[in-house]
Amino acid sequence: VMRERLAGLGLAVPDYAPVHAPDDVERFAAAHGWPLVLKAVRGGYDGRGVWMLTGPDPELVARLLAAGTPLMVERAVSMRRELAALVARSPFGQAAAWPVVETVQADGQCVQVLAPAPGLDPGVAVQAQEMALRIATELEVTGLLAVELFEADDGGLLVNELAMRPHNSGHWTIEGSRTSQFEQHLRAVLDYPLGTTELTAPAVVMANVLGAAEAPVMGLDERVHHVFARFPDVRVHLYGKAERPARKVGHVTALGTDAAEVRRRAALAAHWLSTAEWADGWSIHLGAAVRDSVPKQVEHA
Amino acid sequence: VMRERLAGLGLAVPDYAPVHAPDDVERFAAAHGWPLVLKAVRGGYDGRGVWMLTGPDPELVARLLAAGTPLMVERAVSMRRELAALVARSPFGQAAAWPVVETVQADGQCVQVLAPAPGLDPGVAVQAQEMALRIATELEVTGLLAVELFEADDGGLLVNELAMRPHNSGHWTIEGSRTSQFEQHLRAVLDYPLGTTELTAPAVVMANVLGAAEAPVMGLDERVHHVFARFPDVRVHLYGKAERPARKVGHVTALGTDAAEVRRRAALAAHWLSTAEWADGWSIHLGAAVRDSVPKQVEHA
Repeated sequence: VMRERLAGLGLAVPDYAPVHAPDDVERFAAAHGWPLVLKAVRGGYDGRGVWMLTGPDPELVARLLAAGTPLMVERAVSMRRELAALVARSPFGQAAAWPVVETVQADGQCVQVLAPAPGLDPGVAVQAQEMALRIATELEVTGLLAVELFEADDGGLLVNELAMRPHNSGHWTIEGSRTSQFEQHLRAVLDYPLGTTELTAPAVVMANVLGAAEAPVMGLDERVHHVFARFPDVRVHLYGKAERPARKVGHVTALGTDAAEVRRRAALAAHWLSTAEWADGWSIHLGAAVRDSVPKQVEHA
Repeated sequence: VMRERLAGLGLAVPDYAPVHAPDDVERFAAAHGWPLVLKAVRGGYDGRGVWMLTGPDPELVARLLAAGTPLMVERAVSMRRELAALVARSPFGQAAAWPVVETVQADGQCVQVLAPAPGLDPGVAVQAQEMALRIATELEVTGLLAVELFEADDGGLLVNELAMRPHNSGHWTIEGSRTSQFEQHLRAVLDYPLGTTELTAPAVVMANVLGAAEAPVMGLDERVHHVFARFPDVRVHLYGKAERPARKVGHVTALGTDAAEVRRRAALAAHWLSTAEWADGWSIHLGAAVRDSVPKQVEHA
């Protein structure tokens, strides 16, 4: 429904088709080639409900359909990266756009958000903001709208998904923008004038804290102690969720002037909070007392 | 008790004496001259419990003593301005100091905080931070400590009062520092490593929203609408308190590079929220629709 509506507005979306039988996938492949992306039409998030198909897999399709999962298939877009355009709109019609960000993906899930998107052509950035504002207006969005975009190899923008709410791609705004996505959402829903979307630093990076594949020996509270000591400038947000492999249980935000260094700090802090394992460049910055209190090799239970 | 303890640490405080009878004030005046400041030893805040005496007033002193108010008298320090040094200290002994701020007073009450204190000699700033850190250490403070200081006409620093808690002079840190005084207080009390006290902008100004002398016709919610429209960058904090004349019912924070302009914006926003009355430079920036919806002359009930 979302793809049809967006295509109806003349916005570029990946080629797609609904899947009611395994044959639908092979017919689409005959026209568009492999690989293809099979998606659950409802309920997908963080890489769940998405299957990359490098060739026919009628058994998978049949099994999913038999389980009652409504499906679609789409072309695997050959792309440079993923971007997101975050905007807010009030019932009065006022709208505000944050700078376009890059969303770094791993295993189908966002792991980092780089604000603003490094090296993005200014014309493409404006185009992305205009697309998001247009979608918000046409769909009469009230509150936040995140538009997930593919920056294709040819530089064109394709709309991937919409999220009509404060979104993971906007968590960086809590410290990184004068108005956070949460304050802006409330301003918009309550029809107050919107706040400025100005950045608080030239480079802002949000990194998700993911549940580790195996539970770290060191408790989360102890990990927080270490990350606070190592990075007194990094802001830590923990959601109080049980840790499960790859589950988003929190995020960190780093800010500064050197985008690469800011990204490195955010990545190290999030990695440490996830796994309590040393990463390159970590140990040398810890004071001796802290360093000696932590086993160098963390043994997994 | 606080003055005795500070003097015992060798820190400069205004000359003072306890007052048990009206004669005590006159004896102090004979040694130090008029004017003098009579203070309630307990329970004073926001200018309450402070009386400026330009000459003998034995009736006032007798009445206060009869009402059970313990009193002290002190020299009225001839000063350039008031400053505040905000620090945090953890049980482990880690300490952190924010830049020293100027606290602008009106009617014995703080109305604005300018961070960092404009034009403050860097040596004096360090001296103020060192005084605050020393007090925190000597008194074994856990959490936040605000040291209110007089910058005397001769450039010397005198300790006025201590507040061992997050304090009005530190509200600017919510948006103006990478670590707010509230987060820092929790980090300190929980004995976590403290966060950086770096500023998020070269100039930060907090202005208190005070209850007006007469209740404004325009409701607070409507005033917020206007201030949001006029200053999309100003952050508004309202405490949900009933409005009473001169009561601190909220505050606003402005940030930027031009300290004078930042102060002007904060002052205008706070004044508008307090009174719903036009101030210089206000109306020309409002859109016509907003301007026309507001009576130019607010009639007080």
